[in-house]
Amino acid sequence: MKIMQVEKTLVSTNRIAELGHRPLLVVREKAGGGRQVAVDAIGCIPGDWVICVGSSAAREAAGSKEYPSDLTIVGIIDHWKAE
Amino acid sequence: MKIMQVEKTLVSTNRIAELGHRPLLVVREKAGGGRQVAVDAIGCIPGDWVICVGSSAAREAAGSKEYPSDLTIVGIIDHWKAE
Amino acid sequence: MKIMQVEKTLVSTNRIAELGHRPLLVVREKAGGGRQVAVDAIGCIPGDWVICVGSSAAREAAGSKEYPSDLTIVGIIDHWKAE
Amino acid sequence: MKIMQVEKTLVSTNRIAELGHRPLLVVREKAGGGRQVAVDAIGCIPGDWVICVGSSAAREAAGSKEYPSDLTIVGIIDHWKAE
Amino acid sequence: MKIMQVEKTLVSTNRIAELGHRPLLVVREKAGGGRQVAVDAIGCIPGDWVICVGSSAAREAAGSKEYPSDLTIVGIIDHWKAE
Repeated sequence: MKIMQVEKTLVSTNRIAELGHRPLLVVREKAGGGRQVAVDAIGCIPGDWVICVGSSAAREAAGSKEYPSDLTIVGIIDHWKAE
Repeated sequence: MKIMQVEKTLVSTNRIAELGHRPLLVVREKAGGGRQVAVDAIGCIPGDWVICVGSSAAREAAGSKEYPSDLTIVGIIDHWKAE
Repeated sequence: MKIMQVEKTLVSTNRIAELGHRPLLVVREKAGGGRQVAVDAIGCIPGDWVICVGSSAAREAAGSKEYPSDLTIVGIIDHWKAE
Repeated sequence: MKIMQVEKTLVSTNRIAELGHRPLLVVREKAGGGRQVAVDAIGCIPGDWVICVGSSAAREAAGSKEYPSDLTIVGIIDHWKAE
Repeated sequence: MKIMQVEKTLVSTNRIAELGHRPLLVVREKAGGGRQVAVDAIGCIPGDWVICVGSSAAREAAGSKEYPSDLTIVGIIDHWKAE
């Protein structure tokens, strides 16, 4: 799993129905790193350092085998110091 | 999921039947970045910033578990400023 | 999906039976880029620019869910200008 | 599979129930390399060089097809000299 | 699939039972490149240039859908000249 920091919520009005109402968050591995989008299965706020699961495991972590996610937040790290 | 920008439609006359008539779009993560091909499940136009799902989730996002996609556009981002 | 160019056929006499007789082609994303091996589901010739699907979708694109491919050529691009 | 070194245990109090009580470890491919999180299916201690399996195989290696892991430690290497 | 060269056998006494007795080999894409671990489904010797399949296809290529591999050697290349 990757260690990433939550930046903000992503707004996408026009999206496929399968995404439902789960929040989509912009995350990045480090300051200045590339940004990705993760499905929030926990309830995070900007600044949180989180554990993101990818691959096929991201689907079930987001709630069901049919959920179209390839990156899902599965936990908030209690204490983390960026490198 | 990745944040990518739509560049143009890709024409491939000679392709496997399983791809059907879904549009294939050329997308890239940033200006000058490498180009990839994504299946459009939304209806995008060049210039749109979109959310692309990869891994095994790309198949169902494209319409069925059998669809041969590893990158599918699942949403258009309302407002996005490239880095 | 990735945009790659076909370089040549790869000969591997000693291989697992599940690969069958499908042609294996050496492909690369750009001149000087790293070379990979793709299963040809179309019928390509060296020099063709093709669309390669990876991830779990590569298996079904190669003909069956049991086919051991992680990169399968699913279409030939009509016109492509390398960057 | 990747060859990685165990750094420490990761504490995440707020996480999805599916992760259960399996230990989550911070691992890295080499000194100074990026850090990732792996599920420990063996019982490792900091400093161990381990074999980590990713992709969909990480789920079953962690105990069941439903386990939300994309990186699972499946073995400790007897002797390893980092490059 | 990736083109990799076999370096040596990897010894891991303490590993999960699901790995069974299949040989684990250290492979690398080129001299000086990062080393990974692949399951040998063919019978290779150090120095061989081989075809390695990743993603979910690595599991079945290693013998069964439940085998925890994300990189499996599926063929030996007859003639290969490293770049």
